[in-house]
Order: sequence, then structure tokens, then C-alpha cells
Amino acid sequence: MHDAAALWADFARPIAGADDYLRSLRGRAMNVFFMGERVPEPVDHPVIFPSINAMAETYRLASERPELGGVHSDIAGVDTNRFLHVPVKPDDLVAKHEMQRELGRRTGTCFQRCVGLDAIGSCHSVTFDIDAERGTNYHQRFLAFLKRAQTANIVIGGAMTDPKGDRSKPPHQQADLDLFLRVIRRDDKGIYVSGAKMHQTGAVNSHWLIFMPTMRLTEADRDWAAVGAVRVDAPGLTYIVGRQTNDTRAVDGGSLDAGNAQFAGQESLIVFEDVFVPYEHVFMDGEWPFAATLVERFTTYHRSSYVCKTGLGDVLIGAAAEAASHNGVEAVSHIKDKLVEMTHLNETIYSSCMAAAYRSKPMASGAYLNDEMLSNVAKHNVTRFPFEIARLAQDIAGGLVVTMPSEKDLQNNEVGPLIRKFLQGKSGVATVDRMRILRLIENMTIGRNAVGYLTESLHGAGSPQAQRIQIARGMKIDDKKARARALAGIGQARKNP
Amino acid sequence: MHDAAALWADFARPIAGADDYLRSLRGRAMNVFFMGERVPEPVDHPVIFPSINAMAETYRLASERPELGGVHSDIAGVDTNRFLHVPVKPDDLVAKHEMQRELGRRTGTCFQRCVGLDAIGSCHSVTFDIDAERGTNYHQRFLAFLKRAQTANIVIGGAMTDPKGDRSKPPHQQADLDLFLRVIRRDDKGIYVSGAKMHQTGAVNSHWLIFMPTMRLTEADRDWAAVGAVRVDAPGLTYIVGRQTNDTRAVDGGSLDAGNAQFAGQESLIVFEDVFVPYEHVFMDGEWPFAATLVERFTTYHRSSYVCKTGLGDVLIGAAAEAASHNGVEAVSHIKDKLVEMTHLNETIYSSCMAAAYRSKPMASGAYLNDEMLSNVAKHNVTRFPFEIARLAQDIAGGLVVTMPSEKDLQNNEVGPLIRKFLQGKSGVATVDRMRILRLIENMTIGRNAVGYLTESLHGAGSPQAQRIQIARGMKIDDKKARARALAGIGQARKNP
Amino acid sequence: MHDAAALWADFARPIAGADDYLRSLRGRAMNVFFMGERVPEPVDHPVIFPSINAMAETYRLASERPELGGVHSDIAGVDTNRFLHVPVKPDDLVAKHEMQRELGRRTGTCFQRCVGLDAIGSCHSVTFDIDAERGTNYHQRFLAFLKRAQTANIVIGGAMTDPKGDRSKPPHQQADLDLFLRVIRRDDKGIYVSGAKMHQTGAVNSHWLIFMPTMRLTEADRDWAAVGAVRVDAPGLTYIVGRQTNDTRAVDGGSLDAGNAQFAGQESLIVFEDVFVPYEHVFMDGEWPFAATLVERFTTYHRSSYVCKTGLGDVLIGAAAEAASHNGVEAVSHIKDKLVEMTHLNETIYSSCMAAAYRSKPMASGAYLNDEMLSNVAKHNVTRFPFEIARLAQDIAGGLVVTMPSEKDLQNNEVGPLIRKFLQGKSGVATVDRMRILRLIENMTIGRNAVGYLTESLHGAGSPQAQRIQIARGMKIDDKKARARALAGIGQARKNP
Amino acid sequence: MHDAAALWADFARPIAGADDYLRSLRGRAMNVFFMGERVPEPVDHPVIFPSINAMAETYRLASERPELGGVHSDIAGVDTNRFLHVPVKPDDLVAKHEMQRELGRRTGTCFQRCVGLDAIGSCHSVTFDIDAERGTNYHQRFLAFLKRAQTANIVIGGAMTDPKGDRSKPPHQQADLDLFLRVIRRDDKGIYVSGAKMHQTGAVNSHWLIFMPTMRLTEADRDWAAVGAVRVDAPGLTYIVGRQTNDTRAVDGGSLDAGNAQFAGQESLIVFEDVFVPYEHVFMDGEWPFAATLVERFTTYHRSSYVCKTGLGDVLIGAAAEAASHNGVEAVSHIKDKLVEMTHLNETIYSSCMAAAYRSKPMASGAYLNDEMLSNVAKHNVTRFPFEIARLAQDIAGGLVVTMPSEKDLQNNEVGPLIRKFLQGKSGVATVDRMRILRLIENMTIGRNAVGYLTESLHGAGSPQAQRIQIARGMKIDDKKARARALAGIGQARKNP
Repeated sequence: MHDAAALWADFARPIAGADDYLRSLRGRAMNVFFMGERVPEPVDHPVIFPSINAMAETYRLASERPELGGVHSDIAGVDTNRFLHVPVKPDDLVAKHEMQRELGRRTGTCFQRCVGLDAIGSCHSVTFDIDAERGTNYHQRFLAFLKRAQTANIVIGGAMTDPKGDRSKPPHQQADLDLFLRVIRRDDKGIYVSGAKMHQTGAVNSHWLIFMPTMRLTEADRDWAAVGAVRVDAPGLTYIVGRQTNDTRAVDGGSLDAGNAQFAGQESLIVFEDVFVPYEHVFMDGEWPFAATLVERFTTYHRSSYVCKTGLGDVLIGAAAEAASHNGVEAVSHIKDKLVEMTHLNETIYSSCMAAAYRSKPMASGAYLNDEMLSNVAKHNVTRFPFEIARLAQDIAGGLVVTMPSEKDLQNNEVGPLIRKFLQGKSGVATVDRMRILRLIENMTIGRNAVGYLTESLHGAGSPQAQRIQIARGMKIDDKKARARALAGIGQARKNP
Repeated sequence: MHDAAALWADFARPIAGADDYLRSLRGRAMNVFFMGERVPEPVDHPVIFPSINAMAETYRLASERPELGGVHSDIAGVDTNRFLHVPVKPDDLVAKHEMQRELGRRTGTCFQRCVGLDAIGSCHSVTFDIDAERGTNYHQRFLAFLKRAQTANIVIGGAMTDPKGDRSKPPHQQADLDLFLRVIRRDDKGIYVSGAKMHQTGAVNSHWLIFMPTMRLTEADRDWAAVGAVRVDAPGLTYIVGRQTNDTRAVDGGSLDAGNAQFAGQESLIVFEDVFVPYEHVFMDGEWPFAATLVERFTTYHRSSYVCKTGLGDVLIGAAAEAASHNGVEAVSHIKDKLVEMTHLNETIYSSCMAAAYRSKPMASGAYLNDEMLSNVAKHNVTRFPFEIARLAQDIAGGLVVTMPSEKDLQNNEVGPLIRKFLQGKSGVATVDRMRILRLIENMTIGRNAVGYLTESLHGAGSPQAQRIQIARGMKIDDKKARARALAGIGQARKNP
Repeated sequence: MHDAAALWADFARPIAGADDYLRSLRGRAMNVFFMGERVPEPVDHPVIFPSINAMAETYRLASERPELGGVHSDIAGVDTNRFLHVPVKPDDLVAKHEMQRELGRRTGTCFQRCVGLDAIGSCHSVTFDIDAERGTNYHQRFLAFLKRAQTANIVIGGAMTDPKGDRSKPPHQQADLDLFLRVIRRDDKGIYVSGAKMHQTGAVNSHWLIFMPTMRLTEADRDWAAVGAVRVDAPGLTYIVGRQTNDTRAVDGGSLDAGNAQFAGQESLIVFEDVFVPYEHVFMDGEWPFAATLVERFTTYHRSSYVCKTGLGDVLIGAAAEAASHNGVEAVSHIKDKLVEMTHLNETIYSSCMAAAYRSKPMASGAYLNDEMLSNVAKHNVTRFPFEIARLAQDIAGGLVVTMPSEKDLQNNEVGPLIRKFLQGKSGVATVDRMRILRLIENMTIGRNAVGYLTESLHGAGSPQAQRIQIARGMKIDDKKARARALAGIGQARKNP
Repeated sequence: MHDAAALWADFARPIAGADDYLRSLRGRAMNVFFMGERVPEPVDHPVIFPSINAMAETYRLASERPELGGVHSDIAGVDTNRFLHVPVKPDDLVAKHEMQRELGRRTGTCFQRCVGLDAIGSCHSVTFDIDAERGTNYHQRFLAFLKRAQTANIVIGGAMTDPKGDRSKPPHQQADLDLFLRVIRRDDKGIYVSGAKMHQTGAVNSHWLIFMPTMRLTEADRDWAAVGAVRVDAPGLTYIVGRQTNDTRAVDGGSLDAGNAQFAGQESLIVFEDVFVPYEHVFMDGEWPFAATLVERFTTYHRSSYVCKTGLGDVLIGAAAEAASHNGVEAVSHIKDKLVEMTHLNETIYSSCMAAAYRSKPMASGAYLNDEMLSNVAKHNVTRFPFEIARLAQDIAGGLVVTMPSEKDLQNNEVGPLIRKFLQGKSGVATVDRMRILRLIENMTIGRNAVGYLTESLHGAGSPQAQRIQIARGMKIDDKKARARALAGIGQARKNP
């Protein structure tokens, strides 16, 4: 399969919806491992399926609310999923963020498709800029690739984070050169890459991956300055799916203990071993100064994408309110006050992300990029507020959220009736429903989807310190100092008459 | 002066700029008191002048940056100051907020003109809605009034907060009926109002005032449901200017101790005693259900107007950075980190206000209103973050900010040289400049402009609890609960295949 | 077994240490359920054993550091475990807290023995007070019971939290009278109780339980005003062990994925069905006014007992520092600063708990009780700071804490070498050790022991609002107001000359 | 006056109480400047007097509550003021802290006597240690000095903070060698020192000053390693009293606007020009390694001394509650909740300070020193919580706290009645009393005593970063890491059977 066209043969028919998407994932020859075992068919794996189902929700949304989940793209001239769209006006980013919040509300977890979306946006402008400076033709290659992807309505994943090894050294000085993904050789058809990408969201559930460098590079790192697209089932790729908190509750039987049995996130370690990429799918190869550009644009897009967490916040606020209602305390003043505080924090995140969209600016390629300062500010709040929202949700929910018996106990003839008797809440509320809501709160605050709601909120799109560095760069401290000097009456005539 | 046209005779010539504005304030027959004495000419009062000068900056901005400080109004068909403009598209609110931040940066204090601006916006739509329901003609009256104001390029102040007395009782049950401003009688020319308005920002520096009710009213409160416009020098009006922290440093001599000698805020208690308002200037009289509408719209506008505090934040961040530079510690990691934190908090406020502008929606009159949830969220952050920014500024500045000798000591032959010797900072920094920056930080964190930056940030446009009530109203908790139930698997078929 | 002496026959030989303790738990006829199945021998259950092992650590400490884990009791005249000691001087409470922190450090989890300890302290004084007022002989009964327990060196658990049902109604008005534990009948030998206790820490791992009312009672609740001691294997008792996050990692194979394979907490729902208590083991029966006294004293003791969380904090701070070291970033300023912040918060909790011990006061029985205000303040900080410490630990640790492959992947021939290659940290650090530390951080922040470190910190010994109510009661607001009036110059001659 | 005995001649009669103290301050020949003018008699200066009056309160307390404000000293064998006592058991430090809180409650400000007290404690042990190592006789000199001071019952001030100049350079490398206080020459009678001390609390109100180095010194800084005692009226000393927020309200007339007319703090810049110190009053001269020891001990004592702020907190909480009562909203849930939060924060500070006292340890001299970690933790909380308490006080108080008319307006015949009419609160509350409470809140949050409650809480006894450095030093990270490794199962046999 050294021919780009051949690589697309499997995608001749556009994916029509969620069921079609699930079908499209079957029967692929991928090296996927989980808990020490090869997974022959991820769709059928009970631990992995909820993550696939969360991804499928992006197709359901496009079917049910095409104005939100879909979009017309001038690139391919087709209506396609909004996750394949390059933003060409602020409203595109606004709509993107509204879609992300809605999907957060629908799934209560990470639906995994934003990395690919933000990779598309970044590559559009960076390939354009490289071409403009170097006379290359990456942009046309990229547009051709994207046109095929939009037409086929597939899922594109993005792959950025390298293992990094010794963090004090650049790629070319690492003891093991593979600790950053790199081009190990080239021939007349394409390039061959080796290395690995960490924490890859939804990779197993994608059709294609775009790999990108993870940080600023120097000239000596030329071979690491590579961007390209590969099929997820390309020879040489191995996926090791990470363990998540409570992942095996998906196989404990029943649906209650999982908290959210339908949806989950997914992250894996992807290993690249001599993976071939035909030149048609290579979008950067050696143009090291643009690695930093790409990373900055990607993170600017991606930090605003964390608006999705406000959708999860909506669910968690709702769950806390429902739990309070089950306890008959929804009208108590300190409960109401905590729900208000949760909402305030959630909407503060939302406002920052939305402002970053409305204040987006066009780049040379015509793509729009979120306001960099506000995008960093938005993500920085995401590293803080969900933790407080989660704490307040647990406060409202009560200790039962972590001491509750299993669904299997509920089904047991001896102790099931005891649980029904003693865990009953307010009159009219089924004990099992009370338990379901508490398990959902567990799921989002100390269970499987807390991975996405809390830890990923810290580290996704860059850890807190990464945002602080960007805020420092953008804070125009000299202008601020000049304003202070002026008002302090230093070095100038004063305005008093 | 029972004739509206006569009341406008003094404003035949449009105010041309800041100097013309200062001139326009002179020679008026107003009852103004400060510290127990009648103030014959506020422009000449050294404590009051800095507040007038801050207001004048709104004219300077319009002259220097007409695209920001000015606007074309279709109502009067003229170019006028943006503080007289009714927003008719989201970008009008965006530009308003950018203007407010810029004026905050230029003055480092409250420039006092936003209450009037937000009163204009609110009255535009509310008069329209009353007319639509009651067949009155308030909207045309209001447009005529506004047309005159825009043409004359004057300052309109707003007056809302009543003394309130016993907060558990409505206006008509107060022991003293004047504790809320009310119509005490009517004749064929107009109405007569009595009462008082508290904490009135910049009233003395205005030309006209629009008075409005301060809260939801009932039918028995009909006489309190009054909106109208009066000249600030109308017979029956008395102004008692409030004391501010360090206000008298303006008369201590020199400019250093004041910290910001040029600019300050101003708030006064306005007493209305049988003040006549001709019907042409009455915009509500008895339509009590619209009192709540007016208050909600006004607070929605006005809470976003607190974006001005990010301009003050810019100054304070700059001052802290400058102070750190004077100490030679600007590159120390914990100093940099505190500057980043201050910026992060400042920009979070900004993002919420801007999002509330971009997401504004049109009302029936065609005026646009900020998003209500986001506007409340924005203001609620204003009640918190400036206090932390101020704390961090003092942390960086050091204790000298409150222990520093007076400018008069610096000028004293005996101790002046000692101060110069011992308060010297990093080589190359004049001691007096170091002192000026520290006094500016004092001014904004524990001095005169801390009134505006801190306390007013708490209470202006409604105290914190007022925002929490609005957030509770808007948080759509039933939708959130439904989302939680769906994901918890309550009462529905599940999506798993 | 209607004879108290007979009930003690099994405890003739004092428990000599941890191994002896483990032996003592075997072969008991208890009704224990977990995940829908009866557990014939909890000691052999891999999920339950780590909680038993944590309890066993209290015996190990007494053997290894007898001055800390043991104490001489004048009641029994023997050296016994400090968890069986009634505090008779402030230093007893100080030593108790130091023991609790050390056990937190050793186990990284809840060692489950404090509820029983605090029940002992509370019953000592309350039985004394009842007798003094009512002429009963509860105190001697209690002392006889405690003497046996101290001599036998057993584990006493405490059981307080009732299911509560409709929280707006007292026990005697509940639809199901069993929703609070109650005396259902009495005969000449003793009383019979029915009901349930929720969230019972370490009950399965105890030898005896003291049950107590959970809140203030009224006269109509007389039958609910019962305190007594029962063997954990008394007929009529059923234990349903709650599910914890990641509990089944104990059976996934290996020790890595568990994070802390050795130690865990345990909470269960205990159902009482017609359980007999001979009068010798009844310490309250109907003296309803003392229910509130008992609850207040118990919570005052128990809220300070949360000093144990500072031991967990020590572990988590150490784990974060170790993870930073593995990444080679321990000397980076923002990392150091986060470790300092974690320590500051941890030691703030410690200081409040210790101050509450040093400022303890004697009660009529001679037992000492922690300072009530400071104990509530201490616990209230526990409901906040561990969440921030956990967030900072995850910040330092990086995203790998939730995306890491399983130990089984590490052992797999195909992917194990890939993991070793790509997850290597700083030179000299074994990948498996890096993984172990990250799993420990997962365990304490989003895994099994986060149950104890986070959620239990919120709700154990009363939820946050319970502390706020006590703080409100103790804040002496009238004295504070008088101080303010004096300084404001209200109603008094002033001190100025 | 080159003879120590002669220097003590003025103090032959012990100061008997507050009035005697005021008398003792009169008629001294001191060079005191304030606002550019020489102050001939500070006791008669209306701006300075409130600070003297706050100091006098330490004498009043000793008279009124001798068990708290006084103590028997074995050094002089007399009963003396507790501010002159060297702590020789933990209870001495406990009593010291209780005295400090009580004085904070009585004055609502900084009573200025703790620096001297903590200097005494530090010099006691450091002189002992120097002697032990160097064979000097500083300790006996110091005891003789202290015996005289205790017998005379005088006020000793401490002077530590040097101007520092270029913070990147040690004293001997400064461009101006006087930027750190130093010995400029020695003769057979004593030493001569020059330099300055900044931010000196209560210096003008003291009788003697102990000067000390401000930081770790090196061998080249020998001449800066000097400790000694001087009379405040020693030739060569000049005091420039710093300006405080709202200081001149003391001269505006009336007592209302000042907020707290009775009490205030005081800080001055003290300049030393060739000041003679006889050897009997020299307690260190050149022993540079002990400079660090002295600073560490002083700051450990002094950081706990910030427990005084909890007394100010008591006043501010009481003032907020009183203001709420005046508004008739004291029972509103969010108001109560804010008072609880203020109390919680205040008591958290208290607990840390008290724990640092109870856990004090003896030094070689027999003096007890607070626990270093807890003392730093206590002070670090002081740099945060008073700011939040102040914010909440303003929240409860309302905006009137910064917009209220002057007392002179209240007295004015025209506007006084209007103010009485419109500023009336709840029935039965005199408007003037309402105003007094609001002015007190202004005084403590944005007025004169906010200097002490807020800014001094940040910077006194070392700025926040100074505590973080000490916390980092004391956090025993290696032990914590070992605990984490043990639980993660690294490098050891595990305890599972």
C-alpha cells in the first residue's frame, strides 16, 4: 500500500451515521493490547466499547442536529461532520465550542475527537506558511487529504505527545533517539517513521492519525520535524490501551456500578516502528522552525476545546442536584449555594472559551485561530475549577458515593432487600435510581470518567505550567508598566490643569 | 423651567472635548456638600477635581481615538460619544467593553460614566416594551431626550440605588415613604419626586441624571415606579459627596502622596426634594411591573461594564512589575509567577465580560442586551479576583507601600537626603520614582482608588449575593438533571447495542 | 450467649501482635457480603485483606514503637494499645494524634480504628454524666467492659451513622422505624436492637462494636436513645462491604496496578436484626437528652482524629516529589513551589488538630476532650485541603497517572519491551519503579485510597456543613460585636485623654 | 553618656501603668519627623497619639489582668510586663499568644510591642550560644540589660530590617555601605553604628531599641554582624514616621471618620548616624555566623506573634455582624455563612500559632522557641486569610463603607438632617452608630488599621516567600519520599502474607 489512492480504497463510501461508524471499525487488522492481551476486535471489547460509543455520539449529533454537529465545507464541497472542518470565520469556532459542550453533556466524558479536529486546523495554516516561505507544496497535499477525509466522513485522530525521555535534552541528544517520533529513512515513495506517542485520545477508535512534533525544535532536530497522516491500521503501529480507574467495572456485570455504562474516554500509547508514509500524506519533513508554530497553533485551538468540560460540568451539577432531591434537601440554602457556585465556575470556563472563539483572528491560509491569551486563560481555569466542582458534587452527594454496595448485592436474595430497605431516600424515589445517580457522581469524581473530567483537565493540551508560560509571553508587561508610570506621574507632564 | 425645551437651552452648543467639558461644569447653581461645607465650584475643589478629570478622559478618548471613544448614532444622526450610544449589534457592546478597559488603563480609577450609559440602554428597550403593552408613548419621549443628549454631547448620569430603610419591607410600607424615591404629586406639566439615591457615581460631574427604581415593585408601589430625567442643577437636588480613603491627600501638597494625583472616582448621596420633571422627561410613571424588567436589564448591562476593572488591573500589574524592577527582582521566579497569576485572573474577568457582549441578544426595541448568565458570572468574578490581584501587588511591592515617608519629608532639608539615601532601589532608578510607583500601588490597594478597584467591585451593580440569585435563576437545573439521569441510565432505554 | 462473661470467653488470651490479630479474625461465623457473594473468610478475600492489613498496622506500631502505639491504662492496670485508651490529660490526645499521623504515613489509607477509639472516649464521660443525673450505673458497666477490652487487647469498632431516611423527620416519625437503630424489645437479660449503620469503617475487621445514636433526640425517640456493645459475630448482624474505586485491582494479578497493594480502607453497611445486648453491655437506654451530648463529644474527638490525613498527605507529597525526581524536574521552581504549597496545607491541618488536643479540657469523668472550636476548624480544613493537595500531586505527576498501561502489559512479551523503552524516565530510574510511584499517586487521588483521602475527608465525622453549624455555635458573636462597638466609639466614654 | 549606668538613670522608678507610661514618653529629646515637620512632642501629636495609646494598652492589660499581661521573671526577680519576659516553658508562649490576641481585640490594630519581645527571646539564646562557642560574655551583659529593663518596666523595641539596597549583593558589596546597619568604629568604651532600619514598629513609642542584623552574613560582613541596645533618644538617631492610609483623619475633627479614633499602629524609618553603644549594651560584634541563627530564631518567634491578627479578626467579624444587624439581615443564611467562614479562617490562624507555641522546644540557654515549621505555616496563613476576612466584611457591610458622608456633614445644619433621614437602618439603631460601625470596617479593611491588618500581615516578620523558603527547608522531603516508595512497593519486601 505504497499508493495514497489505494490507502483510501476502503473509504469509498461515506460513513452515514453512528451505526455505520461502528461497522467501519470492525474487521481492521490492528495491533491493540489491553491489560496484557491482544484485543482482536475493539468494538466487541466491553471495556473499550464505551469509548467507541462516545466517539459514535459525534455521528449521532450530526444526524440529529446537523446544524450543530455538521457543516458544509468548501474544501470538499460537501456537508461533513464539524469535526472535519477548518474554521474560516469566528462563528465556526463558536459553533465548534457549542458542539463540544453539547457532546460533553450527552456523554459525560471525553468523546476524543478534538485532537484530530485541532490538528486539521493547525496543519491547514502551517502547511500554507511553510509553502509560502519554502516553496513546498504541503498545503495542496493537505487539502487533498482533507478533501478525501471530509468526503468519506471519517474520524481523524491527532498524535502529538512524545515520551520525551530526559526532559533536559532535545530529541537528537536523547540516549534513545526514538523517544521523540522521527523520520528514520526516506525513499522515492515516502518516509518511514519510528517512535511513540503517549496518552493518545481515541486513537483506536479513529480511521487515520495525523502525527505532529510535540515541541520547539532546532536545526539538529530536523528528522524529528515531521508531520504526516497514516491509517490507524498501517503496518508497524501498535496500540497499548491505558488502564483507567474502574475500567473493569464494565465487565463486573450489570450497568449500575459503572456509573456511566454507556460512555467513557480512551487513551493509548501508540508505538510507531518503521511506519511508511507516502509523500502525498507528508505535510512537513524537516522544516524545523515550523514545529514551534504548529505546536503553538495546535495548543491555542486545543486549549479552548476544553470547553467540552463545561458539558461534563452540566451533567455533574445536574447529578448533584438530583442527589440532593433524592435526599429531600434541594431547597436547603447551603445546597442551593453550592449548586450556584458549581454553575458559576462552570460558566466562567465557558465564557473564557467562547471569548477566545469570538476573538479569533485569521491566519494567512484563511483559517481562524482562537485568541491566544484567552485560550490559555480558559484552559488554565480548566485545570482548577473542575476539581472544585467535583469536590462540591461529592459534598452534596454524601459519603454513600464511595461506600455503596454493588449492584450484585442489590440483586442478591439475602442482602438485596436490606439494601432496598435502608438505602431508600425521599418517598417516591426508587432506591436503584438513587444508587444510579450516586454511581454517576462517583464515575465523574473518583471513577472512570474522573480521568477525563479531572486529570485530563489538568494535563490535556498542556499542563498548567505550559499555560502560565504562554500567559507570561502574552501579557504585554511593558505596556502595563508604561500605564503605571503615567498614572504615578513619572517622566511626563501631568494632565492636571 | 417647566418647559423641556427651556431646560435644554444651556446645551445648544455640543461639547467639543475635554476642556469644553470642564468649562461646561462651571457656574452651575448646584447644592454640593463635602466634609460639612458647601462646595461653590466643584471643578475648583482639589479633592473633587480628580474625579472630574477622570470623567473628562472620556472626552479625551473620543478626541484621540474616535473609533473607540465615539460612535455614529442613528438616533440623532450625529457622531457622538460612545457613552451616549444605544447598542444595536453585538459589536457595539464589544466596542463598549474595549473602551471601558482602555479608560480603566488611562485613569486607574472609576471614570463614572457607565451608569448613565447603561441607563440609556435599559430605558430604550423598556420604554418600547411599556408602550407596546400599555399604548403609552414613553419610547418617543425617550428618543427625543436621547437625541438632544447625543447632539449636545453631554454627560448623562444614572441614579438607581435607594436608601431602602428596612430591607424586609416594600417601599409603601416603609416608616418613611421617602426611603425609596417616589412621585409625591403630579400636575398638568409633570411630576414631582422626592427621596434619595445612594452611592451615586459621578453625579456631580454630570449634566443630566436619569432616575430609576431600584428593585421589583408591586401594585401598591405604583408611585415608586418612576423613571425620568432631570438636570443635575434642578431645584430640589442636594449632593453630599462621600469621603474616600485618603481623599485629603489631594490637599496635603505635592502630588506624590496621592499615588494617582490625576484621577479618582466620586460617589455622592443625592437628595431629591419635590423635584419637578416635565412629562417630556418622564419615561415611566406607575407601570410597576416594568420596574423589575428595567432593573434586570440595567444590571445585565452594568455587570458586564465592570470590564473596566481589567483596565485598572492592567495598571496594577504594571505597577507591581515596575516595583519589582526597581528592587531588581523582576526575574525571580516567584515574582514572575505572581505577575502571571494576576494576569490570569484579570484576563478571566475580561473573557467573561467579552463573552457576555458577543453573546448579546436583541430585544424588541432593537437594542442588544448582554447575555444574562455570563454577565452575572463576569461580575461575580469581579467581586473576587481584584482582591487577590491587589494582595499579590502588595506582596510584590513590599511593606514600604504602607510605611513610606511623606513627600514633604522628601522635600525637608534634614530628612529628605536621608530618605534619598536609604530608599534607593536598583542602580539607575530615581528614589522619587520608586516612591511614586509604591504610592500608586497604595492608591489602588489601600488608598483612594481602592475604593473603586476593591469595594466598588464588590458592591457596584449589585452585591455578590445578587449575582448568585441571578445565576440560580438562569442555571437550567432541570435540563442538567435530565442529562444526569440519562447518563445514569434512569428511566430510559440505553444506547448500548 | 446471654451471659456477658460467656461473650468474653473467646478473648481470654490477649492479642499479642499483628499476626495474632490476623489469627483472631479467622473462623468467625459472620454474615459478610461483597459484590453479591457471601465472604466465608474475610482474611482470605484479596479485596478485603488490604483493609485488614491496615488495621493490623495498629498492632505492628504498638510492637515496634510501644511509646507511641501503646499506653498504660489505669482502668485495666495493663499496657494496652493506645486505640483502647481514654485520654486523661492533654498529652494523651497529643500522643493519639501523633500516632494517627504515623499510621497514616505507614499505610497511606484509613486504618479504621479511630471510630472505636473516639466512641470509648465519649462513652466514658457520657455514662458518667448520665449516672450523675439519673442515678444509673452505666459508667461502671462501661469501665468493666473497657477493662476486658484493654486486657484482651482487641479491636473495638464504633457504629454511629444511621440511614436516616427522610431527613426532615425524627426517628419516631419515619415511615420505617428501623431507619434509625432502636430498641425493639427488652427482657430481663438485656435489650434487642434492630436497624442499620451506614459507612461503617473497619467493622468487619473489629472484634466488638459500640453502637450509638447519630443525632439529637427528643423524648418521643426514647427507644432510639441506645448505646451498647456487641460482638461483631453476634447473631442478627449482617455486613455488606461497599465497593471502592478500583477495588478489584486487588484481583487483577500482580501488585503494580493497585498502587498500594498492601493497604486499603473498608466501609460497610451493617444491618442489625433483633440483636441481643445483655444489660452489662448496655451503656444508655432511653436517656434521650444525652444523645446530643454523646454525638457532640464523639464528633469533637473524631474531627480532630482526621489528623491522620496529614500522614496520607506526607505520603502523597513524597510520591509527588519522587515522581518529579523520576522526570528530572525536582529542582524546577514551579515544582518546588507546589511541593511547598502541599506541605503548607498539610501542616495547617496538623496544626489545627494539635492545637485542639493541647487545648483539651477535662470533663466530669476525668476524660479530656479536644477544644471544640479548633476541632471543628481542623476538620473543616480537612474537607478542603486534601483536594488541593491531590490536585497538585496530579499536576506534578503528569497525565501518565491515568493513561499508563497495565502491569500485565509490562509482562507481555510483545508490548512489555515497548513500555520499558518508552516509559523510561531519568537515567537510573527503573521504569517499573516510575510506574509504581505513578500508580500510588493514582491510588491516592483517583483510586482506591482516594476514597479515604478525599471523599471520607469530606464526609467522615460529619459533612462540611456540620462543622459550620458548630463553628457558628461557638463563635461568641456577641462578645465580638461588643469589641467592635467599643472600638467604634459606640456607647462608651473613650480612652483618649 | 558613655556609661551604661548613667543611661539607666532616667529609669530608676518602674513604670507603674498606662498613665505613667504616657508620662515617661514626654520631654525626651528625640529627632522625630512626620509629614515634613519636626514633631516636638509625639504624645501630643494627634496622628501619632493613637499609636502611643495602643502601646499603652499593654500596660492597661497588665494592670487589669496581671495574670495575662504580667508575669514573674526569675531574671530580675520581679513581676514585670509579659512583653519583657523570656519564655522558659511552652506555657509562657501559650500565654504570650493569648495576650497578643486579647490586645488585638482591645485595640483593633498593631500594639507594636512584639518585635521587642521577640528580640529579647532571640538574644537570650543567641548570646548564650555565642558565649559557649567563643568564650565571650554577651549573655551576662544581656541578662544585666534585661534585668534593668524588667525592673524599670519599660518598652523595648526591636530593629531588624535594613534598607538592603541592591538585593543581589551582600552588605559589604553595596555601593553605599550604610545600606545595612554596621559598626563604623570602636573605641575602648563601645562601638559606633551607622545605617538605617526600615518599617520600625512603635519605635518612637519605645524607651530602648535592640538593633539586630537582618539576614545571613558572611565573614566579609563582620562589621555588619552587630547587636546592641540603645536608648531611643540616643544622639545620632532620627525617626521619620511613615504615612498611613487615612492618617490625617485624626486631625479632621471629630472621632467618627477615623473609624477607630483611639488606636493605631506606627512604623518609622530610623536613621543611625554614628550612634554610640557602650560595650555593656553590645550583644554581638562580629560573630557573623550567628547572624543567621539570630534571624531564624527571631522570625520563628515573630511569625507566631502574628496571632495578634486573630484579635483584629475578632473585632472585624464582630463589626460585620453588627453592621448586618443594623441592616436587619443578620439571620439571612448567606450572611451567617460568611460570618462562619470569617471565623473559620480566623481560628485556623489561631490554631497554627497556638500549636507552634505548645510544640515549642528548649534551646541551650533554657529559653523556649516555637516550632519552626508550624510558626512559618501560621504566618503564611496570615498572609492570606485576613485579606479574605476583610473582603467578606466589606461584602456584609455594603458599599456605604466607602461612600458615606463625613462626620462634619452629619453636623452640618443643612445636610445633617438629610443624612440622619436617609442613612437610618433598622428601627432602634441610631444612624450615627450605624455610621461608626461602617467607619470601623473601613478603618480595618481600607483605612488606617488596614495597614496593620492587611499589608503588615503580608510583610511583617518576612514576606510570603520567606515562609515558603523555611517550609521547604523543614519539609523533610526525603522521609516523605521513602514513605511513598515503601507503599508503592519499591525496593523492599512487602508486608502481605
